[in-house]
Amino acid sequence: MPDQPRVEFRTAPERYRHWRLATEGPVATLTMDVDEQGGIVPGYELKLNSYDLGVDIELYDAVQRLRFEHPEVRAVVITSGKPKIFCAGANIRMLAASPHGWKVNFCKFTNETRNGMEDATVYSGQTYLAAVNGTASGGGYELALACEHIMLVDDRSSAVSLPELPLLGVLPGTGGLTRVSDKRHVRRDLADYFSTKSEGIGGKKAVQWRLVDEAVPRPRWDETVAERAAELAARSGRPAGDDPVALTELRKTRDDDAISYDHVQASLDRNAHKVDILVKAPQDDPPASIAEARSADFWPLAVARELDDLILDLRTNETELGTWVFRTEGNPAKVLAYDNLLLTSREDWFANEVLHYLKRTLRRLDVTSRSLIAVIDPGSCFAGSLLELALAADRSFQLAGVFEDQDPAAEPATITLGEINLGPLTMSNGLTRLQTRFWGDEAGYEAAAKRKNEALEAEDAADLGLITFAPDDIDWDEEIRIATEERASFSPDALTGLEANYRFAGPETMETKIFGRLSAWQNWIFNRPNAAGPDGALRRFGTGQRAVFDRKRV
Amino acid sequence: MPDQPRVEFRTAPERYRHWRLATEGPVATLTMDVDEQGGIVPGYELKLNSYDLGVDIELYDAVQRLRFEHPEVRAVVITSGKPKIFCAGANIRMLAASPHGWKVNFCKFTNETRNGMEDATVYSGQTYLAAVNGTASGGGYELALACEHIMLVDDRSSAVSLPELPLLGVLPGTGGLTRVSDKRHVRRDLADYFSTKSEGIGGKKAVQWRLVDEAVPRPRWDETVAERAAELAARSGRPAGDDPVALTELRKTRDDDAISYDHVQASLDRNAHKVDILVKAPQDDPPASIAEARSADFWPLAVARELDDLILDLRTNETELGTWVFRTEGNPAKVLAYDNLLLTSREDWFANEVLHYLKRTLRRLDVTSRSLIAVIDPGSCFAGSLLELALAADRSFQLAGVFEDQDPAAEPATITLGEINLGPLTMSNGLTRLQTRFWGDEAGYEAAAKRKNEALEAEDAADLGLITFAPDDIDWDEEIRIATEERASFSPDALTGLEANYRFAGPETMETKIFGRLSAWQNWIFNRPNAAGPDGALRRFGTGQRAVFDRKRV
Repeated sequence: MPDQPRVEFRTAPERYRHWRLATEGPVATLTMDVDEQGGIVPGYELKLNSYDLGVDIELYDAVQRLRFEHPEVRAVVITSGKPKIFCAGANIRMLAASPHGWKVNFCKFTNETRNGMEDATVYSGQTYLAAVNGTASGGGYELALACEHIMLVDDRSSAVSLPELPLLGVLPGTGGLTRVSDKRHVRRDLADYFSTKSEGIGGKKAVQWRLVDEAVPRPRWDETVAERAAELAARSGRPAGDDPVALTELRKTRDDDAISYDHVQASLDRNAHKVDILVKAPQDDPPASIAEARSADFWPLAVARELDDLILDLRTNETELGTWVFRTEGNPAKVLAYDNLLLTSREDWFANEVLHYLKRTLRRLDVTSRSLIAVIDPGSCFAGSLLELALAADRSFQLAGVFEDQDPAAEPATITLGEINLGPLTMSNGLTRLQTRFWGDEAGYEAAAKRKNEALEAEDAADLGLITFAPDDIDWDEEIRIATEERASFSPDALTGLEANYRFAGPETMETKIFGRLSAWQNWIFNRPNAAGPDGALRRFGTGQRAVFDRKRV
Repeated sequence: MPDQPRVEFRTAPERYRHWRLATEGPVATLTMDVDEQGGIVPGYELKLNSYDLGVDIELYDAVQRLRFEHPEVRAVVITSGKPKIFCAGANIRMLAASPHGWKVNFCKFTNETRNGMEDATVYSGQTYLAAVNGTASGGGYELALACEHIMLVDDRSSAVSLPELPLLGVLPGTGGLTRVSDKRHVRRDLADYFSTKSEGIGGKKAVQWRLVDEAVPRPRWDETVAERAAELAARSGRPAGDDPVALTELRKTRDDDAISYDHVQASLDRNAHKVDILVKAPQDDPPASIAEARSADFWPLAVARELDDLILDLRTNETELGTWVFRTEGNPAKVLAYDNLLLTSREDWFANEVLHYLKRTLRRLDVTSRSLIAVIDPGSCFAGSLLELALAADRSFQLAGVFEDQDPAAEPATITLGEINLGPLTMSNGLTRLQTRFWGDEAGYEAAAKRKNEALEAEDAADLGLITFAPDDIDWDEEIRIATEERASFSPDALTGLEANYRFAGPETMETKIFGRLSAWQNWIFNRPNAAGPDGALRRFGTGQRAVFDRKRV
């Protein structure tokens, strides 16, 4: 793969090359019709509705916009604009030519988008329906698996399949195995057989094995899809007829050293292999009611969007910057007031959407393979929703006292737990970051939660276990310098593994299984000569030559 | 690492080179005193009580023997025979010189042994106590983590540590991260800090951070260890004073083509990359009572031991034989009768031990990275405990009818679910294999369970979802041939990943997290140049040269 141009995640329906988004009353239809010549990097053609990161960025954008710009939409049909083929999955030439890191990052993003479809189904009353009107292989079937209901055209040629193992020597990388076993409850031996049969399974057998929900003959296809979409829409509790909120283009400036938005700034320190990220609290009080808040400029929504874009940009474009240092600034009371408006308006669709967007953005941070450090000093604003950044961090530092030399009269740094930290912003393990932090320590959790809405200085915060270290101003610079320098000196791979283990104490869910068990195995397989070596299956695919395997089982 | 000699797992206390096993009433003491020159392969010295596979084979043997040969033992103290050092963990030169597969297999076995210590603590009333009388680093601390109670000598120099990440660029590979977060509930940020601090943490801080349970000054050390061991022993419900059951040396013959025991035979087919394994039902009826059964010749115990040894032998010595095909033969009624004796005697310590040993052996099979196929034909005996082999398999084939050409008068092959399949033989996810198979399909589970004790022919078994395929004699040979040949043609790595995902539907536990999340990440890291490359941390350790890292985060 040639040097990648910087990837930009901002897009909008009028710029889509690969998807069409149409709505008709409560039903939206997302039609995949990939432009073969529209690869995000040169070197491959996106044949047979196969996809690359660029195609998936558009899908991601559409899924997000549907939630905000289409309050009336209650069911979303995903289908193909090509005859006979639904989607052939991730483009194999792209995968074969991509460096390891690109493959892994690509899979992570596509996973997040599919989790987002399930999130919309469960929490927004926008139920996804896969109208598989042709063969769905690999990532194509995995896209369908992320939908609540899967319809397969029954025409004796269309099938669903996971041909990655037999054809490419890798796993289906976008949650396929986990969803087959844990979501659709396909029996393990049938799942095993299915995943080794490259031509896949169609028709009645696909229904019997639970791989799809129904097989529909082509003559009845259109009406049945419409019928099913109407049924799913009718089940939804999403309030109809409210005003949409346009996700206007994010204001962003980006050069080699800095990325800036209205409320979020990042400065890129290539020598130290780190990024300093500053998140700013709102300047103003929140609107009096959620009805007046409906705009992309509403601070919580704006911050979630900016952080989301920043995480994606850094993750994809700045792989050598291994540590992200989070700072905040502003008035904690204003953040808590905004949080409060959201929490007291949770029945409102827009407030609900903003909360879930923030939740998803923070989850994206949790699965980001970068060391996260939070720095809490005077003037900072780690309160309520912004405190989640410190709770997501691998370590946090809060200044005990003030900087005596610089500003002895300053107010000492505080952190403030808010109601928002106690519920809605769950991690992918189903627990809040606070619950995960105190997993197995009920008393510690209760003691911390009891101090809700109290501005806690460093010593209190440390005693309560809410921060990691509370150095005073004599040790401050040195401790933070050592922590970041040391981090930069460690093996990036081992850090990724360490963080992926320690960030997810407690229960596992389908989502954590996808990012933990499944993705870790896939990372390993992607990295092995049997897949990625010159004679490996991924590289030899389509050459007419069979792969050469080291037969040793590991 | 030079070509490895064939590894043999059978040993006995009189042959130990690295451990001393002593008992005094209800307390056993396992003293680690590693012979520096006793490496299982040449090329490294086992300094500072560091260990390799040979050391761990002895520990495994001791843990097993304690359960059978020492019914009187209720607490097991693990301590060191060297001054100032408890255990330095896995030998680094051994790891650095080992091929990838050896490292992974070594970690799997050491994990199983530590899980076995926890299993003895929970189910046998043999509670493990780590008497950490010197520094415990890496795998040394992980050994302590597998104990119920950790005592650390408080002498200003002894500490516990996980220096793998900062020193070697890998993860602690024996459950350390999972047990720190999910067993000991060390807060995630403290755990992160701890795991980057190579010198570790000792004294009161180690207690405060929950890394150990108590720090005891050296002058009070011996008496406090004895006191604590006595307390743990007093808590145990293990019946005292019963006759021990000697685990006599397994009768085994082994050459390049075959491995044979009394009840288990394996023939190694190197051309087809598979092993054919035959397990034989007992010839005789079970003894009238469990008291008369107390011997290593008791069929269920003998079979568990033979299978256990076979799995370990094949896993370690025959890595290119990627498919194991299980067959059984004998009288199903006799197997069910033996099972029944065990189940009706569960209150008896020996019956309890046999059941748990069988459970652990089957779990070892579940985490084995080989494709497992069960072949059920006339004369086979997949009933009760032996049916677990078919339920553990990735696929099973049961002949519909009989072989018309060979033996038209034969009884058709059957399988029989027994009571034993409905409870005690849980997988590491906490569910039985039957529950895992029907995860999310309550009705399917109930329908199958209702047919308990019924000999089910192929069609019934297939309808109930208990087997995968039921070919008749016309298709039989061809189907099995294709399945095994196809399996041998796939990427061994991708198969490992596929099986590791599909075998564990449903909930995750600490044990599945260790084998899934943690081990998969470790596999990946072990395989990366940042660890294992010529300039990687593992290879450069001790050379005075710093590792050179590719800084890209993945």
